[in-house]
Amino acid sequence: MTRRTKTIHSIAACSAMCALVTASGTAVAQSSLTVFGVMDAAVRRTNTDGVGHVLSMASGSYTSSRYGFRGREDLGNGLNASFWLESFLSTDTGLASPDGFQRRATLSLSHAEWGELRMGRDFTPTHANWSRFDPFNYVGIGSVQLFSLSATGTTPVTAAFGSNSNSIQRSSNGVQYLLPRNSWGVEGGFTKAFGESKVSASDQHDSIGGRLGINLGPVFVSAASYTTHDDKTISNFKDRALAASWDAGVVKLSAGIRRFDYRDARQNNYLLAAIVPWGAHEAKLSLNRTKMGGSVGTTSVNGDGADQLALGYVYHLSKRTVAYATAATIRDKGNTRFVVPGAPVGTAGAKSQGFEFGMNHEF
Amino acid sequence: MTRRTKTIHSIAACSAMCALVTASGTAVAQSSLTVFGVMDAAVRRTNTDGVGHVLSMASGSYTSSRYGFRGREDLGNGLNASFWLESFLSTDTGLASPDGFQRRATLSLSHAEWGELRMGRDFTPTHANWSRFDPFNYVGIGSVQLFSLSATGTTPVTAAFGSNSNSIQRSSNGVQYLLPRNSWGVEGGFTKAFGESKVSASDQHDSIGGRLGINLGPVFVSAASYTTHDDKTISNFKDRALAASWDAGVVKLSAGIRRFDYRDARQNNYLLAAIVPWGAHEAKLSLNRTKMGGSVGTTSVNGDGADQLALGYVYHLSKRTVAYATAATIRDKGNTRFVVPGAPVGTAGAKSQGFEFGMNHEF
Amino acid sequence: MTRRTKTIHSIAACSAMCALVTASGTAVAQSSLTVFGVMDAAVRRTNTDGVGHVLSMASGSYTSSRYGFRGREDLGNGLNASFWLESFLSTDTGLASPDGFQRRATLSLSHAEWGELRMGRDFTPTHANWSRFDPFNYVGIGSVQLFSLSATGTTPVTAAFGSNSNSIQRSSNGVQYLLPRNSWGVEGGFTKAFGESKVSASDQHDSIGGRLGINLGPVFVSAASYTTHDDKTISNFKDRALAASWDAGVVKLSAGIRRFDYRDARQNNYLLAAIVPWGAHEAKLSLNRTKMGGSVGTTSVNGDGADQLALGYVYHLSKRTVAYATAATIRDKGNTRFVVPGAPVGTAGAKSQGFEFGMNHEF
Repeated sequence: MTRRTKTIHSIAACSAMCALVTASGTAVAQSSLTVFGVMDAAVRRTNTDGVGHVLSMASGSYTSSRYGFRGREDLGNGLNASFWLESFLSTDTGLASPDGFQRRATLSLSHAEWGELRMGRDFTPTHANWSRFDPFNYVGIGSVQLFSLSATGTTPVTAAFGSNSNSIQRSSNGVQYLLPRNSWGVEGGFTKAFGESKVSASDQHDSIGGRLGINLGPVFVSAASYTTHDDKTISNFKDRALAASWDAGVVKLSAGIRRFDYRDARQNNYLLAAIVPWGAHEAKLSLNRTKMGGSVGTTSVNGDGADQLALGYVYHLSKRTVAYATAATIRDKGNTRFVVPGAPVGTAGAKSQGFEFGMNHEF
Repeated sequence: MTRRTKTIHSIAACSAMCALVTASGTAVAQSSLTVFGVMDAAVRRTNTDGVGHVLSMASGSYTSSRYGFRGREDLGNGLNASFWLESFLSTDTGLASPDGFQRRATLSLSHAEWGELRMGRDFTPTHANWSRFDPFNYVGIGSVQLFSLSATGTTPVTAAFGSNSNSIQRSSNGVQYLLPRNSWGVEGGFTKAFGESKVSASDQHDSIGGRLGINLGPVFVSAASYTTHDDKTISNFKDRALAASWDAGVVKLSAGIRRFDYRDARQNNYLLAAIVPWGAHEAKLSLNRTKMGGSVGTTSVNGDGADQLALGYVYHLSKRTVAYATAATIRDKGNTRFVVPGAPVGTAGAKSQGFEFGMNHEF
Repeated sequence: MTRRTKTIHSIAACSAMCALVTASGTAVAQSSLTVFGVMDAAVRRTNTDGVGHVLSMASGSYTSSRYGFRGREDLGNGLNASFWLESFLSTDTGLASPDGFQRRATLSLSHAEWGELRMGRDFTPTHANWSRFDPFNYVGIGSVQLFSLSATGTTPVTAAFGSNSNSIQRSSNGVQYLLPRNSWGVEGGFTKAFGESKVSASDQHDSIGGRLGINLGPVFVSAASYTTHDDKTISNFKDRALAASWDAGVVKLSAGIRRFDYRDARQNNYLLAAIVPWGAHEAKLSLNRTKMGGSVGTTSVNGDGADQLALGYVYHLSKRTVAYATAATIRDKGNTRFVVPGAPVGTAGAKSQGFEFGMNHEF
């Protein structure tokens, strides 16, 4: 007793999984501040046919390395104020780049029955809809991420955004309304992000959209749409996603499609995945396909695309720590030059492979 | 037992208002480490006559968004060691820029009766003297800040510092002596900041000055002076401020003047403000005027200036969380082109308006 | 009671010296998260003969200013997962540069009997071997650091790395195996860092090496070797260090040599040091010598070198806080232009001196 009293003396923290430390006095409003994060590192070997191989250390191949602060204050009458600050982090180099808290920076006013008003930088509705169906958590060499981001080559995403910030994953300056937890199993929300560029062109774009999901016992279905526009720089970029999962106990299956439309170009991304858990183990399988059509400027992208196959194994050392191994291969079609993350860029239509094994620790 | 329950509650919950978590063992010197911050976001609409309007998300319009770490160690015999690290933060984008802890980074040795020796980066005496009289806390569209910083146009501040770092708000490399709390109600201190530029020109300047305030019951009067010099780049930049407040209960009034002198140019900033609190509510009014004289190089700034009127409303959801709304207008005179923060820059003598409503949460 | 015991379980005591706060429930795995750091500031006056003097504020002259997060999770069966994130920090300016956690970012899986597997960015074996024998902790005007880093002039270090990141102190992308604590007093480990540059040249280099030390009662001897190579940019850079210390009670003596070899150039750094502790006081003496030989390109560095003499005094205000003063002088030989840190760069063969007094606080 005495010993613990002494050791408590300066506190500050919490695992992502443990209950928050809160005031236990009934007269005091409950409040909390949590320091949290993920450290993830893996040794990776990738290879692109005709180019060569690279041995490297990767950060965030099971879930993204990150760190942050979040907190909540009970305002009474069912109202809560809360915030979330989350930074990028690289376990291999120590970099936290892009800097600040560009993974997420939000301030919320929420009510158990009325829902949540959230302001700041957060995931877009379509990303939120898409990433949760990927058994590889949108990261690592098995990730569905690759086909959603700009890449070497010609795609609707690069046509719309080039190397500027895009709205595929996140938007700044957003005002969101999110549905409360309800008895019908319906979830989702609406997002409006300010481009702030009516007067001069900026790197941030006006965006609007929403997501709607429904939990039907073991089945979950979710759809989202998000349109980005900037009257100075880009036309409408349409991003839509539809996906479903079925938790059959011995296996959890998921399938989805995400479509990008920009001017005359379109890109369809397909996902088919399975997770088989047994005890502290998990096996994961993912099949991703991307297929483009139309043209970017005067360049036809008909027939461009790629297939990705990924196999993963996870061993849970604890609730917060896992060891994992993933193998993946990508086969390009047409003029695409997608490669497994970390592999050297190859020629059009090349094949690349990779293998990585690592460790992930939540704090 | 009960006592520990109480001490635990601010653990993690380190609001700026709650007691610090400390060792409760009597044999152990008391010490604390606090993670703290502010998240503030507002939706803002601004307009400049003849240019147009911008809809945007602002960060830090009630008080500046920030995060940081601070701590204190009891060294015995009345001595304390303490530190303060505070970073910029943008709730709308997640940026923490300028990076590091450039809002404040100080290390102190202090004594209840002898005062405090503080080293590092901190507010200048004149800024400390000026900002506390602004009912808008020096931020947002109603802030007195605007007239103190370099702006589009020709002012003593831009003449002295251009776009380099200035000593209007903060100085790096500072050694401060701060008076202890005393029974005469006298407060203040002395600051010397090293320019480190005797040999080669640097972006940091030699500065020296101090502040002296006196609490006379409901009346508080404070004066400060700070002179910046760099033998390689700039002449003496003189910054002086004098202000007073009167807390009459139903209303708190404040008035002040801050004057910048640089070579042949001078700028006088005037502030007249009132805060009316009732229950959880507050109404705020602020009148700011800036008036320039003399010349910057060969350009006369006689007759240049601007008037700013701001009205605010605050609702306290709790001690740590508020909702607020502010409206402000700026009318330029002569060749100045000051605009309400976030408004597009207009032509000389233009008028701009803005409105913002938001939420502010301390943690 | 039981409930609170659980919620406390990941909290942390934040002094670098105090025990971690852990779950005391036997059913819950022990875990911790600690926010830690050092704030250090000093007023420094340096002088270079023939150039002049500079008065400045220094950060980190007793130990480096820093801040970070670290944590540990007990996985059961003697296994632990742990992480360490540590950032640069400047008390004088508030900068945290280089940004992110480039002082250290590591993720570990460790076992009391088998040792530790550590991945990420960390000290190199030779730096770990060298810096611990410097009574000035490798920082400040008395530090042995100076002769190990690239400097104005021609040295093997600048020849190999120029102004790019070098592997003198730290390596990114490292996989380390570290020996467990054992009854023979043997310590050390092995490091392999991936250059990730087989395909294109990168700023990071392939490196490999290790360290082995042995504790023989009051005597400690340690040797390390680290070789850096990049098939695109640099030849083998060899870094070797050998040092020993003897703790005689009234005085702790240490001596060491570190040698850099790059192509035709070599540099030998010698260290001879003593620490005399009495009560809360410490006196420190350090003699550093660097001597170069061979040639860098076509430039002979034979006869180039420098001698450094440093005297220090430390007063321990508490276990976490000290006041200190250091005086140092450097005399160059041949064409070297090493100067005391913070002093203006002089002509070849010049002499420079410095004095600093400051305060250091661990949290």
